[in-house]
Amino acid sequence: MAEFELIARHFAPLAAVAPGALGLKDDAALLSVPPGHELVVTKDMIAQGVHYYPEDPAATVGAKLAAVNISDLAAMGAQPLACFLGLGLPSDWPETWVADFARGLGDVCARYGCPLMGGDTINGVAEPILSLTALGVVPLGQALRRGGAQLRDDVYVSGQVGEAGLALQALEGFLDDPRKADWVERYRRPVPRLALGQALRGVASACADVSDGLFADARNIALASQVGIDIELKAVPCPNGTDPIAAGTAGDDYELVFSAPPSQRETIFTLSQSLGLSLTRIGLVTAEPGLRVLDRGGKPIKLAQLGYIHR
Amino acid sequence: MAEFELIARHFAPLAAVAPGALGLKDDAALLSVPPGHELVVTKDMIAQGVHYYPEDPAATVGAKLAAVNISDLAAMGAQPLACFLGLGLPSDWPETWVADFARGLGDVCARYGCPLMGGDTINGVAEPILSLTALGVVPLGQALRRGGAQLRDDVYVSGQVGEAGLALQALEGFLDDPRKADWVERYRRPVPRLALGQALRGVASACADVSDGLFADARNIALASQVGIDIELKAVPCPNGTDPIAAGTAGDDYELVFSAPPSQRETIFTLSQSLGLSLTRIGLVTAEPGLRVLDRGGKPIKLAQLGYIHR
Repeated sequence: MAEFELIARHFAPLAAVAPGALGLKDDAALLSVPPGHELVVTKDMIAQGVHYYPEDPAATVGAKLAAVNISDLAAMGAQPLACFLGLGLPSDWPETWVADFARGLGDVCARYGCPLMGGDTINGVAEPILSLTALGVVPLGQALRRGGAQLRDDVYVSGQVGEAGLALQALEGFLDDPRKADWVERYRRPVPRLALGQALRGVASACADVSDGLFADARNIALASQVGIDIELKAVPCPNGTDPIAAGTAGDDYELVFSAPPSQRETIFTLSQSLGLSLTRIGLVTAEPGLRVLDRGGKPIKLAQLGYIHR
Repeated sequence: MAEFELIARHFAPLAAVAPGALGLKDDAALLSVPPGHELVVTKDMIAQGVHYYPEDPAATVGAKLAAVNISDLAAMGAQPLACFLGLGLPSDWPETWVADFARGLGDVCARYGCPLMGGDTINGVAEPILSLTALGVVPLGQALRRGGAQLRDDVYVSGQVGEAGLALQALEGFLDDPRKADWVERYRRPVPRLALGQALRGVASACADVSDGLFADARNIALASQVGIDIELKAVPCPNGTDPIAAGTAGDDYELVFSAPPSQRETIFTLSQSLGLSLTRIGLVTAEPGLRVLDRGGKPIKLAQLGYIHR
């Protein structure tokens, strides 16, 4: 199918809500940033065989691509504005896959107010490769950053971690569990914590989304803030009966990990109630640089047991 | 090489000029759009074997990726603001290629004030695939669009077209010419017509860059403007002794094709002088929808002779 037809049939309808997309027919799209706001821009690429399984339903591939980018906006406390798609496909790739992918992407974009406003397609690559750039806005100076954690701040994580990692284990056949289907759904259709991120503006001192893994992303906050973080292993919220070390080292959960001063505990408790989302205090910002995960006795667990922590 | 090292070593230096890039270490980048301006966003992807030859120097691949995106900003009359890179590479891809690619990209970004401010890398794809999202700004309501051509406007093209197509012929061994090296350089390092695009705000009624080919891109203006365009073949500026039909159907020139009312002829002549860039009047906007290319006798040349015109 010709590139033009593919765009007109499956992607132009997603752009119809945004006049500045110019029907995906111009050289570029036009967008307005409200006065007093900054622009927040993120870009994530995923490739078949690297980030998802060839047998993953195309709709969930589209949904996940949108969700992981919107999750980066959530981690900055931003409101989505628009997204731009790069779609590289092998020749003769089934149009039904493209239709399902576009539907999955479009559903998530519509749910979070992040319309597709442009992009590019390539026909003739060896394996599908998908790139999304997401734009958001945040009131000037209020973006959540990784680098703001202060000594004696509390450290929190939203929801629970480890389900995406357990889904991978289940999909690879290494474990079986009655909760498997829920975990796989969670892995394939992560929920960006957009309302939480926006509510944390002026509350959290630093924030990141859990993409590499709770421990790795908490460590990124510690490094960027030039502080240390102590996490209590027993506080890490993970599915009942599963290993909290595995949960903290697995990635792809797209929860938010953040720090906040103790004066915000009441606010964060109220926020958790109003969002219907658990916000668990898992640790503390310390003076000694780096990340430590403490066992029940308060002793640091050796890094080797925590698995490889990406930078 | 680990993703983090790759970014730190070759791409973080390109982002050092832009504080909002946050050292490429946060979830997203922060940018300001000046008051009274709109944001212009474009995204182009290129793949080895589809858009460039494996033997093309990596520096020119980076330079071209930046230039084709900045050309889209030029076609809208925008000033570049920042760009975001998606870099998909096979495992064990030579680091020297990455270093050269980053240098080529960075040189063009620096020349046109379009700093790299973020992106993503994937390791383990079958063939290199590169995606760039470029952001620019334009005074509110002044963006050049494809859809503004008016009946009896003149149609112009900048510079000359066909050199990139001739370069491809030469690289494939189909022709030899003493100008070959210049053409190949032109093909590999296109020059975005940024100063021209910005100067055409308030002067041109419609504008596009010549990426698919002069005739195809002029036809896009006609379609978007719901008018017709007649182009005089003998007026098409192409290298001496080469075929103007081939020049008008080949793509990748990255000149600007634009329409303007006859009242702007003097302004456009002066602009051509001040930019040191030829701006050739090649045709006229008419009432009859579609694109026609006229021979010396004023008769339309059959479409088959013009080659396939992409939409």
